[in-house]
Amino acid sequence: MDLPKTVEWTGSAVRVLDQTLLPGELTYKDCHTLSEASEAIRALRVRGAPAIGVMAGYTLALAMKNDAPADRAAFLAGLESNMAAIDATRPTAHNLRWALDRCSRVVRDLPESAGPHDLQDRLLEEATRIDEEDRSLCDGIGDAGASLVPEGGGILTHCNAGALATAGIGTALAPLYRAWEMGRRFEVFADETRPLWQGSRLTAWELSRAGIPVRVLCDGASASLLASGKVDIVIVGTDRVAGNGDVANKIGTYGVALAARAHDIPFYVAAPSSTFDLSLKSGAEIPIEQRDGREVVQPGGRLLAPDGVEAWNPAFDVTPAQYVAGFITEKGIIRPPYERTLPDLFGE
Amino acid sequence: MDLPKTVEWTGSAVRVLDQTLLPGELTYKDCHTLSEASEAIRALRVRGAPAIGVMAGYTLALAMKNDAPADRAAFLAGLESNMAAIDATRPTAHNLRWALDRCSRVVRDLPESAGPHDLQDRLLEEATRIDEEDRSLCDGIGDAGASLVPEGGGILTHCNAGALATAGIGTALAPLYRAWEMGRRFEVFADETRPLWQGSRLTAWELSRAGIPVRVLCDGASASLLASGKVDIVIVGTDRVAGNGDVANKIGTYGVALAARAHDIPFYVAAPSSTFDLSLKSGAEIPIEQRDGREVVQPGGRLLAPDGVEAWNPAFDVTPAQYVAGFITEKGIIRPPYERTLPDLFGE
Repeated sequence: MDLPKTVEWTGSAVRVLDQTLLPGELTYKDCHTLSEASEAIRALRVRGAPAIGVMAGYTLALAMKNDAPADRAAFLAGLESNMAAIDATRPTAHNLRWALDRCSRVVRDLPESAGPHDLQDRLLEEATRIDEEDRSLCDGIGDAGASLVPEGGGILTHCNAGALATAGIGTALAPLYRAWEMGRRFEVFADETRPLWQGSRLTAWELSRAGIPVRVLCDGASASLLASGKVDIVIVGTDRVAGNGDVANKIGTYGVALAARAHDIPFYVAAPSSTFDLSLKSGAEIPIEQRDGREVVQPGGRLLAPDGVEAWNPAFDVTPAQYVAGFITEKGIIRPPYERTLPDLFGE
Repeated sequence: MDLPKTVEWTGSAVRVLDQTLLPGELTYKDCHTLSEASEAIRALRVRGAPAIGVMAGYTLALAMKNDAPADRAAFLAGLESNMAAIDATRPTAHNLRWALDRCSRVVRDLPESAGPHDLQDRLLEEATRIDEEDRSLCDGIGDAGASLVPEGGGILTHCNAGALATAGIGTALAPLYRAWEMGRRFEVFADETRPLWQGSRLTAWELSRAGIPVRVLCDGASASLLASGKVDIVIVGTDRVAGNGDVANKIGTYGVALAARAHDIPFYVAAPSSTFDLSLKSGAEIPIEQRDGREVVQPGGRLLAPDGVEAWNPAFDVTPAQYVAGFITEKGIIRPPYERTLPDLFGE
């Protein structure tokens, strides 16, 4: 299957597929500095919670390579400030903080005798592991979820939680890729996902490249699509799951979940373990990124609202756990009651 | 209050405010022929169920004026074919057919002695009446609904059911204009309303011209807005209401109704009598216009999906009557059970 490589370490730079240019242009951008890499995250050249995690690891390794600290103390001080800079790029995705913490922990765990080069090497090694693990987590999610995909059926997804959002075959799209490889045939409906059109620009792009039939619809049309009988299952990704199973995902997800419930269509959320944040009691504690209103009123530079009219533009919403039929994870499908099943799997 | 004039008879043409150019340009277009006027309806230069009704009346009068039939028989034959042409422009709005039928009835009711000029005059007179009545229907809707608008509150609306959609102060927006005139203060949230952005282009334009605070949001954000506590009431317009109270309105309305219900926020539908089609048992019988998928994947000419990927693009959806807290009409607010209350008011 012809899937794109989203994030890659070149030896001296983090190479990202610039997703802001899709579907028109397939262009890679080499980020040689912390500031270039941070800009790529903030500007959504690379996006998707798992891919942001991979990107965070490589960006930290890149920054510490460039800083070339003289000793261990200077390394650890630089590590802190670089982590803070990377962490500030996007507030909602849990994988970002998770990857940074993991990289930081492994270098701190090295013996005092380790010099700055050892620390740099270990950091890059851990970033590479996160990358490789993410690929295998995606495979695991695909294996766990493939049986949910109905032969001859319809699947609705929102935003992009595919290969472009991960280092592997995606999260929400992984079960679809797996089922397609196994010979199952079906049709995918992709919400266009305003304001940034990740559904039409990215999901439709990677599915059609892989030969899977996909149709695009306006986000507002999803309730009537779900009422039409054309859809058997909804699968979306997530940026963070709270301990009670509440799900933060791209704005518009909650409305899809409500409409799925109204028509008894199961609503699944696909995510690797790193997306579950059991330190949060509920979705109310998940920080929600508010983005520039111009994304709404001035898409692509074309002014669609009168001068001076502002937009309400949260990047994510929270879907209460009660609407989630199950979480598709690399550890299998997790069912309610999430207050019990999530800690059982992911608890300390 | 500074409200625009949507449709106007100039004496020789139907003048329409070209809404496809808003909010950037305020341009009027004079339609001198049936074909120009039909194009204006099809291309949504004039839109909104009540305004389409007014437009239909004037368009029929214009066409019969241009045709200049020699006698009564020729007039009635021409009337039929012109009505069919106008009726074919948009399938969902009930007011279109309603206005045509009404105009046709009054000329047929004239005595045999009436010559073609009398018929022409009577037709134009009826079209003018529909126009004037629509203005007063809007006022009636405003009066009936103003008390629903909460002081200091938030109102969500979808698409444009304002002055631009009618000959008067609108349907869904009429209660807001009335309440504002009475000194009540509040904030309006306008769903942008993909694919054609009537919310950000038109609703935000006319409200901000009238000095009423308005913010725009992506359609997908409405569920999370309703969850946020910022909204006290939802008011939308409608293109056709079936006998059981099911409501056809701009795509995206149904999802808003579901989210309003999930958060116990009342969902009202504003409409004049002419929008109620008691000949239909339920919303399942309302014809839903399917529009060109390029509206979704290629807005403003900018290709947002890969070449060859198609869109599912119904222009309307149907909100089941159970989600409607009440209909705001010129006859007052109508409450469930609609199977009984609608025929009581609008039945033959």
